[in-house]
Amino acid sequence: MSTDDGKRTPSRRGLLRGTAAGAAVAAVGAGGSARAASGTGQDRAAAGSRQVRVAILLYDGFTALDAVGPYEMLCRVPDTRVTMVAREAGPVRTDTGELSLLAERAMRDVHRAEVLLVPGGGQRGTEAMMRDTEAHDWIRRIHRRSVWTTSVCTGSLIIGAAGLLRGLPATTYWASRPYLKDVGAVYTPGRFVETGKIITAAGVSAGMDMGLHLVSRLTDEKVARAMQLAVEYDPDPPYDTGSPEKADAATQALALKLLADAAR
Amino acid sequence: MSTDDGKRTPSRRGLLRGTAAGAAVAAVGAGGSARAASGTGQDRAAAGSRQVRVAILLYDGFTALDAVGPYEMLCRVPDTRVTMVAREAGPVRTDTGELSLLAERAMRDVHRAEVLLVPGGGQRGTEAMMRDTEAHDWIRRIHRRSVWTTSVCTGSLIIGAAGLLRGLPATTYWASRPYLKDVGAVYTPGRFVETGKIITAAGVSAGMDMGLHLVSRLTDEKVARAMQLAVEYDPDPPYDTGSPEKADAATQALALKLLADAAR
Repeated sequence: MSTDDGKRTPSRRGLLRGTAAGAAVAAVGAGGSARAASGTGQDRAAAGSRQVRVAILLYDGFTALDAVGPYEMLCRVPDTRVTMVAREAGPVRTDTGELSLLAERAMRDVHRAEVLLVPGGGQRGTEAMMRDTEAHDWIRRIHRRSVWTTSVCTGSLIIGAAGLLRGLPATTYWASRPYLKDVGAVYTPGRFVETGKIITAAGVSAGMDMGLHLVSRLTDEKVARAMQLAVEYDPDPPYDTGSPEKADAATQALALKLLADAAR
Repeated sequence: MSTDDGKRTPSRRGLLRGTAAGAAVAAVGAGGSARAASGTGQDRAAAGSRQVRVAILLYDGFTALDAVGPYEMLCRVPDTRVTMVAREAGPVRTDTGELSLLAERAMRDVHRAEVLLVPGGGQRGTEAMMRDTEAHDWIRRIHRRSVWTTSVCTGSLIIGAAGLLRGLPATTYWASRPYLKDVGAVYTPGRFVETGKIITAAGVSAGMDMGLHLVSRLTDEKVARAMQLAVEYDPDPPYDTGSPEKADAATQALALKLLADAAR
């Protein structure tokens, strides 16, 4: 596959090979275009809408990767629009306070979304959201007509506090598993757990695995596989201590201390 | 390990088990505290500073996960401060235009950082930064005194355009590998490639693997392993097409089409 268009300056040649090339489009055409593929998804029909609206709920003290991992998987799905939503439009600070993401819209102005995603947060942020009845009202309202309602990390405790998980299998951040029962959910192992139209993901980075799964649900496996390549998600961490089953007690304790010390 | 403090309301019990618990601190104390561990890192000595300053350079059209993946790994490293830097302080839009991160400081106000990280971006954003001589001056200035200079995805083409990679092994986004030679670098396979004090990561999500490696370089393996658990980075994508070596031609072409169609 050649993507050169004959101009030899780097800035003209298409640094992401193929973006300016007929070759890519031709090959896609042969295999079924992204647009055509996405049109076959049953969920798209269920949504009854030309555009899939994804609302990601930000709140003071959320964990950045919980939101950005799935965002990166979903934001290039054809005919999909991801919007960050918060109590008020504007900057929303993460759990460590070192980063702010901009919420584009306020909750009160968002009445409908085909996909709702609630990220997890630090102790303080999660607890505040578990008590926030106004946020719960909004979550329930969006959930009523959503195609998918999803959470990452302790986000499951938040949608659980809104009453969405009663009697249902779910997962959450590894250290928070015991608290799922407090919202009536049944802890179930897995990087993500799907039950009806609800998908809960395990901690932080698990949102990427769930996001990829969600891409296939919204379109098909072909698009999901291409999306995995688009974000070069071929994980190869230098260690293998990413779950409590793989980490000893000292590592678990140190992980919790790192979290607590970095919380604002 | 019990973390209950005797109060039975969920909001008081510590949703992230152990954050309020003596048990965690005691266990960490037995195994060497995070602070003590971080003090042993040779790089901390090299930095000659109490606090490790991490500067992540944002620019119009950057890719969110390139910045947020490593941020999430680094933001809880003891005595480390991550700062988003851009031409001007304020919101900076990503490649799809659907998300903005807030840059806390302007380049001209940041004169020193122990760690510099340059994320990749879409075609337009990367090309603009490859031509931005003012940004190159800043990158070179920070690099001169940095302990680590790093990039994710097409960020290597940007630091390469600033002259940092001449004759050196490096990696980049899979589809951009042919363009490394244009900045004098030698494409080298790997999730990340370390050469001297420069580390370049492969595409988008590879920044998480590099970020974890960087944690161990800044502290030690014990902290890095705990950080992997802290973000529950136990990847298990539903597919296995995250590199061009694992994806057929049609998947590669569709990935490039998805990227091109979503670019603003």
